[in-house]
Amino acid sequence: MAIHPFKNLTVEETRIARDVVLSLHADTVVDFREIYLQEPEKEKMKQYLELEHASRPGQSPTSKRPPRLAKCMYDVIGSDKVPAYHESIIDVELKKRVKHKVVGKEHQATLTLWEFETLVEACKKSKEFQDAIAEFKLPSGFELVVEPWPYGGLDIGAENRRYFQGLCFAQDMNNKNADSNFYAYPIPIIPVMDAHKKEIVRIDRLATGGKGDSMTGQTCSERILDHCTPAEYVPEMVEGGVRQDVKPINITQPEGPSFKVIDESLVEWQKWSFRVSFNPREGAVLHDVNYDGRSIMYRMSISEMTVPYADARAPFHRKQAFDFGDGGAGNCANNLSLGCDCLGVIKYFDAVIVGSDGEPKVHPNVVCLHEQDNGIGWKHTNWRTGRAVVTRMRELVVQFIITLANYEYVFAYKLDTAGGITLETRATGIVSVVNIDPGKTSDYGNVVSNGILAQNHQHIFAARFDPAIDGHNNTVTYEESHSVPMNTQTNPNGNYYEVRKTVVAKSAGLDANPVDHRVFKISNPTKKNKISGKPVSYKFEPLPTQKILAAPGSIQANRALFTNHHVWVTKYHDDELYAAGDYTMQSQIEKGGVHDMVARKEKVDNEDLVVWNVFGLTHNPRVEDWPVMPVEIYQLQYKPSDFFERNPAIDMPGQKNEASVLVGKEGGCCEGKL
Amino acid sequence: MAIHPFKNLTVEETRIARDVVLSLHADTVVDFREIYLQEPEKEKMKQYLELEHASRPGQSPTSKRPPRLAKCMYDVIGSDKVPAYHESIIDVELKKRVKHKVVGKEHQATLTLWEFETLVEACKKSKEFQDAIAEFKLPSGFELVVEPWPYGGLDIGAENRRYFQGLCFAQDMNNKNADSNFYAYPIPIIPVMDAHKKEIVRIDRLATGGKGDSMTGQTCSERILDHCTPAEYVPEMVEGGVRQDVKPINITQPEGPSFKVIDESLVEWQKWSFRVSFNPREGAVLHDVNYDGRSIMYRMSISEMTVPYADARAPFHRKQAFDFGDGGAGNCANNLSLGCDCLGVIKYFDAVIVGSDGEPKVHPNVVCLHEQDNGIGWKHTNWRTGRAVVTRMRELVVQFIITLANYEYVFAYKLDTAGGITLETRATGIVSVVNIDPGKTSDYGNVVSNGILAQNHQHIFAARFDPAIDGHNNTVTYEESHSVPMNTQTNPNGNYYEVRKTVVAKSAGLDANPVDHRVFKISNPTKKNKISGKPVSYKFEPLPTQKILAAPGSIQANRALFTNHHVWVTKYHDDELYAAGDYTMQSQIEKGGVHDMVARKEKVDNEDLVVWNVFGLTHNPRVEDWPVMPVEIYQLQYKPSDFFERNPAIDMPGQKNEASVLVGKEGGCCEGKL
Repeated sequence: MAIHPFKNLTVEETRIARDVVLSLHADTVVDFREIYLQEPEKEKMKQYLELEHASRPGQSPTSKRPPRLAKCMYDVIGSDKVPAYHESIIDVELKKRVKHKVVGKEHQATLTLWEFETLVEACKKSKEFQDAIAEFKLPSGFELVVEPWPYGGLDIGAENRRYFQGLCFAQDMNNKNADSNFYAYPIPIIPVMDAHKKEIVRIDRLATGGKGDSMTGQTCSERILDHCTPAEYVPEMVEGGVRQDVKPINITQPEGPSFKVIDESLVEWQKWSFRVSFNPREGAVLHDVNYDGRSIMYRMSISEMTVPYADARAPFHRKQAFDFGDGGAGNCANNLSLGCDCLGVIKYFDAVIVGSDGEPKVHPNVVCLHEQDNGIGWKHTNWRTGRAVVTRMRELVVQFIITLANYEYVFAYKLDTAGGITLETRATGIVSVVNIDPGKTSDYGNVVSNGILAQNHQHIFAARFDPAIDGHNNTVTYEESHSVPMNTQTNPNGNYYEVRKTVVAKSAGLDANPVDHRVFKISNPTKKNKISGKPVSYKFEPLPTQKILAAPGSIQANRALFTNHHVWVTKYHDDELYAAGDYTMQSQIEKGGVHDMVARKEKVDNEDLVVWNVFGLTHNPRVEDWPVMPVEIYQLQYKPSDFFERNPAIDMPGQKNEASVLVGKEGGCCEGKL
Repeated sequence: MAIHPFKNLTVEETRIARDVVLSLHADTVVDFREIYLQEPEKEKMKQYLELEHASRPGQSPTSKRPPRLAKCMYDVIGSDKVPAYHESIIDVELKKRVKHKVVGKEHQATLTLWEFETLVEACKKSKEFQDAIAEFKLPSGFELVVEPWPYGGLDIGAENRRYFQGLCFAQDMNNKNADSNFYAYPIPIIPVMDAHKKEIVRIDRLATGGKGDSMTGQTCSERILDHCTPAEYVPEMVEGGVRQDVKPINITQPEGPSFKVIDESLVEWQKWSFRVSFNPREGAVLHDVNYDGRSIMYRMSISEMTVPYADARAPFHRKQAFDFGDGGAGNCANNLSLGCDCLGVIKYFDAVIVGSDGEPKVHPNVVCLHEQDNGIGWKHTNWRTGRAVVTRMRELVVQFIITLANYEYVFAYKLDTAGGITLETRATGIVSVVNIDPGKTSDYGNVVSNGILAQNHQHIFAARFDPAIDGHNNTVTYEESHSVPMNTQTNPNGNYYEVRKTVVAKSAGLDANPVDHRVFKISNPTKKNKISGKPVSYKFEPLPTQKILAAPGSIQANRALFTNHHVWVTKYHDDELYAAGDYTMQSQIEKGGVHDMVARKEKVDNEDLVVWNVFGLTHNPRVEDWPVMPVEIYQLQYKPSDFFERNPAIDMPGQKNEASVLVGKEGGCCEGKL
């Protein structure tokens, strides 16, 4: 069977692409960064999907199939040892290059994990760094840990070279436990590496003062870790041990799950069907999402996020990660494990990644799929007869989890039996901390442990929805509900309120407005709901979360212009996938992101359009966020609104679950059924 | 063992209270409305709890126990047949009345379900009503249904008598199914009953027009139901039948639940302890909520809600329910059933209710308690060693569900392993509809089925938190995060933002402000967190939902002044439990609610204070809300903020759940473990 156009490149396809690239650069050294699926041009894909939707479910048509393309990103190392960054598109069936560009020096390629390793090596080799570390008397049995970070926004006027920075910690190895939490022991220096020279070129000293202190001084530099205390989270080391009284909750599906996975890509579940893919930048992506054979979404992804830190002291303004653009969220995906990351009957999906030699290997279990119960879905009791009909809400969850040094993010797409899609993010992991002198407090964050300042920061996410509401040409409208003054004509009793509609005619950045209950609708203006007469639509209420707080004009703010609005509506163009643009590493200003896309002021009414959703968390840490923070959950809900002709979950069966039991007397074990 | 002061009145105590009341009104007819626990004066209860907290868990101290009091609400029918509404407090141990008042005629008592029955009877007896109904030719086999409603806000200048209104529908009984959905066939008249005369005194005619039509006319009155179509939701009648492919998800707890219920009142679970009670007005209430022996909340309840409708045509301005104040949410509680309303190992609590003769009877299973898994609680992967530690978030759920004619609300208090408390509301049930002429649409709502207009409306809830953060005297502060212009002194790189704090010194109404990330903290100003040096606190972000839209000065708006702010902070006073005041039935303006409480401008800094949280949904119905709407979920989260000295869930064990399994090939049944 031919490979479906949305399927990840196979190991074999990846290797072909690699070989084509190597053959084209035969006389030079090529260091690969990524090889992954270049998704088909949409115009071609529309034709293919039309055929596919008309054919038998799960059967990929053989005609109109777009070519299988590989996007290859790699450095070509010239004789001067300064690499040039190339991007090529390889047709893996024709084994030929169909597109090639050398990216200009004004942009930096995304980082790779092996560049991180280079930083650690460079620190080892740097006498200046070793001398700096030696100034601090680490407690006995402690070992240095260098945590590589992207360099953040390059300062204006600084030479545009490729840099990495290292956050330094000490790990207590007295217990010989390699998972002892080193973040509890921050050392106030940051080595900076020139990535091409592979040398430490500067060591930044970090201030350790508190309120009213200078922006540069270190008070107690020699015994800087003596006032820090352990913050262990691995169960065998947690202070006081772990709880013994958490009894298991088992989720079993004796008849198996209600979903079907075909060809490791197509998922069918409760009238939903969609394809899952995975790429190194965005992680899991959903394609061609349909309900009961009707198209809802062409593509759904998490596009970008930025995490700017608010400590005013240099060089902390360069703590600003773009966790999708800088290094690729997919590259940082966890290999998920059964019974830990989700419960029940689980399906895992693998991905293919490459090393610097371009050799593909399988990255196992990077996405998990499972079904879950989310409580009551709908209920009505006829109070005359006493008959209650109650059904459950069932959800299908596509989940992936990324680790970015200290932090973790859990991303999930949840499809439900009422036709809704929820995008959920859970932020967890370890907050980023620096050393603070004993007894001091700070305006830049909260003291979450002895000697540990957790700096204030934000997490701002951008999701990308490429809708296809009963077809590709759609319109975005927002509706608000407004008070109307009492008047004899239209509001004699004062109880009336007006629902106002505004069509988004041209590409634009727009905001949440909960005061007026602003609801965005994505409609197909040419298809009317038979019952209400309104265009078939899906709706969402943007989360009215805080935008970026960095001062306008600052580098932090400039490189994340996508954070200036909660919603962006842009005209669809192939290859415009990233809210902050293709290249975020060391950027000083956002280029090619949503801000630039809307500046084209294209018509988006009854057009193929894209909706971007920006939301996030201003995170002023609590002591409770230490040492590993409880999840902070954000959910963006996307619901049918006059898309269907009744509640799509009205046919959910209301059977009693036979496995539920009554608790025993005085809370003992179970006592049988009601 | 003595009965705990927070425990519901027993059947015996209720009967004693009834008998005392009857003996005091020996020569008259007494019609009871309610008898339930009058909670102890707080000053006395503080002393009792202090003793109790110092004694062995589960042991109620015998000294300092406040008296067991019953609140009795009843009509005394005088010789002129016009009842006087009385409220008495009876000491059930001393068998004597300790307080008595006759409520002034400016207030109406809460309604009882037997008053609803009176309306149905009055309709049967009313020739005027029967004649009006006869004007409509009901289809063959259809039967009239009168749905009693409270009368809503009394019009200014109207005589202050006690009224009820009836919404009229026809039920298709051709299938002899008493659960056929009659809401699909609305008849455009509303009979109005004088409750004391028990007579229909007026029949309101409802307009059935659409956009541009008059506010009074009925176009097709005789065959008014002919254009309506069935909207069945009971499984045996659902059009197309119910799905057959939803395979069971079973939740089992082979070792039993992790909670313990002592004396049908005290719940202990994962370091949490609290008491549950239930009363006819508020439903389930939590008392004396503690974590690890530290006090967090004295009392937590859902206090009020209002549902104003926005159809400008008279008499729809009187469609405005106060579902707690008008008839009592507890009175409308569903008797919950195993395996439908929640899954797993379930504990049910009963309540005691009275009939009009004051005779108590058990209202079974009105509250359910169960434990559930809510996904990943915290996770960190050490990317150096590859070791992932992942723990689940476990929640304990106290849930009750009410049915108010067409609508259902699911209320849940969820306590979690990270020290958080979430108040969740789910709105479901059947939207309130009226008849609309064929082919028309309306500015007052959405056509959700043939001939059926679902009117625009709001649901606005008020939750009442009586906090006790490590003691009863607390302070509310709100914190905002603000941008700071770039400047060389404090923000040289532009990345700094300022966290501003404002103390709420005097009782006040305050608003959500997500633009500035406004977070409210309830603190104990005399207890500092040892780590951060900040006062121990719990925090919440009010949901920035829309306030009431009815025009200022309208009766709808005036009687719901509590909806004017998202947060109210008031000084604690005994017996101030209801956001819209004690008496909402037919009110024209809110009296004794939070608006009046804050007008006292009392000091609330380092005082015993109460925090009220107002949130809700502007509900402009979708076709998908018909015939039973999928749940609309709102969650208000209350989280520790420097209350603990670390993540309280850090000691959650990270074991693998052994019951989870891999899905089989191609989505078939399960395939064993990883």
